[in-house]
Amino acid sequence: MIFRQFFDQVSSTYTYLLASRAGGEALLIDPVKENTAQYLQLLEQLNLKLVIAVDTHTHADHVTALGALREATTCATLMGEQSRAECVSARFHDGERLRLDGLVLQALYTPGHTDESYSLVMNDRVFTGDVLLIRGTGRTDFQNGNPQDSWDSIVHKLFRLPDETLVYPAHDYRGWTTSSIGEEKAWNPRLQVKTAAEYAAIMNQLNLPDPKMMDVAVPANLRCGNPIAQA
Amino acid sequence: MIFRQFFDQVSSTYTYLLASRAGGEALLIDPVKENTAQYLQLLEQLNLKLVIAVDTHTHADHVTALGALREATTCATLMGEQSRAECVSARFHDGERLRLDGLVLQALYTPGHTDESYSLVMNDRVFTGDVLLIRGTGRTDFQNGNPQDSWDSIVHKLFRLPDETLVYPAHDYRGWTTSSIGEEKAWNPRLQVKTAAEYAAIMNQLNLPDPKMMDVAVPANLRCGNPIAQA
Repeated sequence: MIFRQFFDQVSSTYTYLLASRAGGEALLIDPVKENTAQYLQLLEQLNLKLVIAVDTHTHADHVTALGALREATTCATLMGEQSRAECVSARFHDGERLRLDGLVLQALYTPGHTDESYSLVMNDRVFTGDVLLIRGTGRTDFQNGNPQDSWDSIVHKLFRLPDETLVYPAHDYRGWTTSSIGEEKAWNPRLQVKTAAEYAAIMNQLNLPDPKMMDVAVPANLRCGNPIAQA
Repeated sequence: MIFRQFFDQVSSTYTYLLASRAGGEALLIDPVKENTAQYLQLLEQLNLKLVIAVDTHTHADHVTALGALREATTCATLMGEQSRAECVSARFHDGERLRLDGLVLQALYTPGHTDESYSLVMNDRVFTGDVLLIRGTGRTDFQNGNPQDSWDSIVHKLFRLPDETLVYPAHDYRGWTTSSIGEEKAWNPRLQVKTAAEYAAIMNQLNLPDPKMMDVAVPANLRCGNPIAQA
């Protein structure tokens, strides 16, 4: 398998490239528009055909590359069925399997950071978007985020994956590149409580400023990152 | 196996943590002093005993954590036999195997970026320090670096590893986290020449400024990152 993690230094976003083999089909998770040329470069060098670009949710801190990648490669651009991004070419639902040659990712509806957030499970790893981070969790105070949903998604869905499952989030701000479900159960400081209410109390006290890019990124991302609306 | 890649955003340095299992012995490659607390945190959380901390070479862009880690954990601090860092607890030679429970890394003398640079080979991957980077190579214009040595190390040593060997360098400035020997053979722009002389011409024209940290980092790193000399 080909597996590549990219780090965008401006927004601290992780993007993931997956393919079963050089010369085969590829999938990108949470690509950043400014890095589109880099993804296309690596796809060409590895002789990969991009067939799917997926956003785990509508990002508020960077502009998605979904539209740019679709224009460049004619790939499918996917988000979950709850997404309000009219531009995506298809929507997946909870439990649906995304297939490309040799690889299968299962969509897991994990709202909380937003109400349209999904995780993607593939064998020994899970791409958690902004719902579960490394020793943190995604904020729940905008885009219909909700601490109760976040708790349910993490505790009752993600934490039912095997402990050794590798966690690949959409962000990390310290330079940690991965974790595991077992580690986050044991060491995620926000999750060392017993009830959703205690977790909500933590999340509701964060008082974070809005992301710098929010007013630009969210409207742009509802158009797949394109400057003008498209069907 | 436990494998973790850390990214230091200040110096764009990658640090690697390796262990065969939770509860076992661990090794760190190219740790950054400012991140010592993070490494100790993860070691504790994974119940790992740090037995070896190794620098691939004397870094000029960040201060090593070797001294701080030895003080905190009593780990061995290793560099290659050509290193002028008197503070290391032991030196390895070309071909020597570094062992911890369940893992073996083979030291490969790969001068060029400096005259005391080593790569570390472990099964399906190689840690290349600053000799071979992703689509780049380490500068050869200070610390007894030499483009002829760099060419020999890359072409006649690293490129003899299997093409599928994963390349984990000590730095990347675009956020790419890994590559492979086959990819670098085919796509590293500095290595698309036929002779060491052509490569040297490229390297000798780079005219790079000195690293910002160089005057601080090199003297500190010859003392394992400690402010006062120690035996």
